[in-house]
Amino acid sequence: MAAALERVGSGFSDNPALDILRQRFGERATSGQAICDQHGRGEGWYPSAPPDLVVFAETTEDVAEVVRICAEHKVPVVPFGTGTSLEGHVAALKGGVSLDLSGMNKLLEVNAEDLDCRVQAGVTRKQLNEDLRDTGLFFPIDPGANASLGGMASTRASGTNAVRYGTMRENVMGLTVVTADGRIIKTGGRARKSAAGYDLTRLFVGAEGTLGVITEVQLRLYGIPESIRSAVCQFPDLESAVNTVILTIQLGIPVARIELLDEVQMDACIRYSKLENFEPKVTLFFEFHGTEASTQEQAQQVQELSAEHGGSAFQYAATQEERTTLWEARHNAFYAACAAVPGKKGMATDACVPISKLADCILDTKRDIQDSGLYAPIVGHVGDGNYHLCLMFDPDDQEELGRAKALVERMNHRAISYGGTCTGEHGIGYGKMHFLTAEHGDAVAVMRQVKKALDPDNIMNPGKILSL
Amino acid sequence: MAAALERVGSGFSDNPALDILRQRFGERATSGQAICDQHGRGEGWYPSAPPDLVVFAETTEDVAEVVRICAEHKVPVVPFGTGTSLEGHVAALKGGVSLDLSGMNKLLEVNAEDLDCRVQAGVTRKQLNEDLRDTGLFFPIDPGANASLGGMASTRASGTNAVRYGTMRENVMGLTVVTADGRIIKTGGRARKSAAGYDLTRLFVGAEGTLGVITEVQLRLYGIPESIRSAVCQFPDLESAVNTVILTIQLGIPVARIELLDEVQMDACIRYSKLENFEPKVTLFFEFHGTEASTQEQAQQVQELSAEHGGSAFQYAATQEERTTLWEARHNAFYAACAAVPGKKGMATDACVPISKLADCILDTKRDIQDSGLYAPIVGHVGDGNYHLCLMFDPDDQEELGRAKALVERMNHRAISYGGTCTGEHGIGYGKMHFLTAEHGDAVAVMRQVKKALDPDNIMNPGKILSL
Repeated sequence: MAAALERVGSGFSDNPALDILRQRFGERATSGQAICDQHGRGEGWYPSAPPDLVVFAETTEDVAEVVRICAEHKVPVVPFGTGTSLEGHVAALKGGVSLDLSGMNKLLEVNAEDLDCRVQAGVTRKQLNEDLRDTGLFFPIDPGANASLGGMASTRASGTNAVRYGTMRENVMGLTVVTADGRIIKTGGRARKSAAGYDLTRLFVGAEGTLGVITEVQLRLYGIPESIRSAVCQFPDLESAVNTVILTIQLGIPVARIELLDEVQMDACIRYSKLENFEPKVTLFFEFHGTEASTQEQAQQVQELSAEHGGSAFQYAATQEERTTLWEARHNAFYAACAAVPGKKGMATDACVPISKLADCILDTKRDIQDSGLYAPIVGHVGDGNYHLCLMFDPDDQEELGRAKALVERMNHRAISYGGTCTGEHGIGYGKMHFLTAEHGDAVAVMRQVKKALDPDNIMNPGKILSL
Repeated sequence: MAAALERVGSGFSDNPALDILRQRFGERATSGQAICDQHGRGEGWYPSAPPDLVVFAETTEDVAEVVRICAEHKVPVVPFGTGTSLEGHVAALKGGVSLDLSGMNKLLEVNAEDLDCRVQAGVTRKQLNEDLRDTGLFFPIDPGANASLGGMASTRASGTNAVRYGTMRENVMGLTVVTADGRIIKTGGRARKSAAGYDLTRLFVGAEGTLGVITEVQLRLYGIPESIRSAVCQFPDLESAVNTVILTIQLGIPVARIELLDEVQMDACIRYSKLENFEPKVTLFFEFHGTEASTQEQAQQVQELSAEHGGSAFQYAATQEERTTLWEARHNAFYAACAAVPGKKGMATDACVPISKLADCILDTKRDIQDSGLYAPIVGHVGDGNYHLCLMFDPDDQEELGRAKALVERMNHRAISYGGTCTGEHGIGYGKMHFLTAEHGDAVAVMRQVKKALDPDNIMNPGKILSL
């Protein structure tokens, strides 16, 4: 892993493109060390790989201009949203320009009648839902962090609602993209479906900025359900909880959220988020969306399944406030794990498997954790077969780091061997490129052909997803 | 349009690849005129552009071998499933080899616990649902024709259930593909979601065989709902029916099907499918899927909306047989239109717009039909904003053909101007390439870069989607 942090060559600090950009963007272009350091790291455990320059874009045209200048001088461009990704996506491995889109934070249009909207790439998911409040609509995709929509599109993010509403793959209708030569294109459209040509939207979604820079995102929205019921159920052990999940999905009960926290994670969350009336036991958080009658019916069906597996009586969140507390606690699970063992760093994992393999995978992983002696709470969007460890390790202890990496290796190869993936929602970045090959084999060569065609000089976020 | 039917060059009948293929495949390779003619046309109005040779593949390895031989000699390869596409997709515009996959008709695996399966590309949608009958599962995507799953993936097909279950875009989890150089790759996987690398699955879905040949398809399945209610409602006019649809979608009522037939189409269907108890009036066909309680609630909500717009009382299909009759009639709408005016040919159209524009688009189109003097029933998957004309014309009457084409032009440009698409589910083929440019502008250049990277010699279904 260390090799990835050594710059190939000497960076681009002397490249004439930097002065051109400084002249053009004035105070919006900076090489200040603190800002460059901050732009060279996400929330993952990787050390910072700072860019030579950070440019703060305000418009799609700004982005196109930066990319054209960089393209002319073959300088790398690394898009930056909120810096909350977990696999080193924003690291400027070869130096170059970090293109900060956080100032592109306008909600450009809301088509309430069509349940869609268009945002600039720097709009965050929380801002979007605040801006939508008066429309009766919401956008459901909710990764743990308050990420930007451009970043969420680029990593094909999801979160707790994906079991019902899908991921960014299903919810991005179209994009404005600046290509590697600085052209501005629009992909997709506002119709619910289209068979018109190659699906460029879904090619750029999940491409992690390696094929172009996403500057605007057209999103599907949903009406806020007439009835929302949140409930919590605690289980005697992991197997019972996971089997409840598997049956719920197999029976097609349209749950909106079904989240697992193991007893270690629950303990951390109770303390970090000051949750009351819960025990540090394996726990499922549920949410049901629909009409009054249908959420009641769904909750009853799932409660029966839970009871058959030894689950406690459902504890319902009676008020909006209680519901918010509950889901905030869930979203802060990673931070809760970090707080539980101060001084350590968190290595996130992100396996996702077919639902029938979920119990085997999680139980085997639990045994691996116990064997490793590491602190590693389990949390998961289990309705999708997706689960995470927050693997805590001491960054100064190479032996412990080695144990953590070995655990991640076993977990990801297990998921892949069961027909699953090494990443359900975080992306590949530069930390998981060898898993990508294990997972997709010869198809990676086709990905490489696409990359070379769209970015022949390899200036778009080089060193991520694919080695060229 | 005529120009497209003139071969560029003299075809490939003397190319040594053909003899190599004949030697290798024996009786499974033929240049018989009837078979070649049949393989050069779909169900659209375009005349046949026959290949020089038809090869009947039985395995993915067969396909890879054919493609490798053709690649070596730069001979075009045109994949062929059931020949039911509508935009000339199977026409061998430059000659070459038609690769018939209809013999690849095995259901390879069903993972009932995970709600997925894997099929060879030649399996048809009806065969799949028959094979699944004992599992309690079904595959919802249902274009009018009994198409093959490989063809449906290649055209990003959908049908009547898409409003609830999505299209092939959402329901293909992974593919086996033979690339233009004859390699076999696997894309996607069996996990519900993945952020691992470029989304090659969705790049090949909808690529109409221009980037490679799909030989196997991994599909999402669904449990057959506990309760299915089908109902029919007749309206005084188009506007009332369409406004009922718009409100149903905007309110988020999870209808499984919501299909529009105008009075002309309804008249044709009543006669063709011997429907009883219906009048030749604007009609909506509904279907509701869920638990007993939820389908009752949905039907009641929609019935109230319909009544507010002057709709008749719901006529429910009381038995499975009645339901089948109803939906068979809907699926046979195109054939019913053809039967209504014997001797004419049908030109299918396929606009799709944001739901708020649906009433305007359909009413404007209705006026255009009246002005044109043509027989053109309207039918639509209106929950998705998708509607079709079955435009009937005399193929020997150039003036009538001209009027038909002018009507299609207006309809598609109108849809595009409203943020919609020239094709919701049929694809571009070679008939709609100029609309693709109108719709996607500079993004078409990026599509072309992808095509050139993956098929540099332009042997994969050349002349479709993109001109190179």
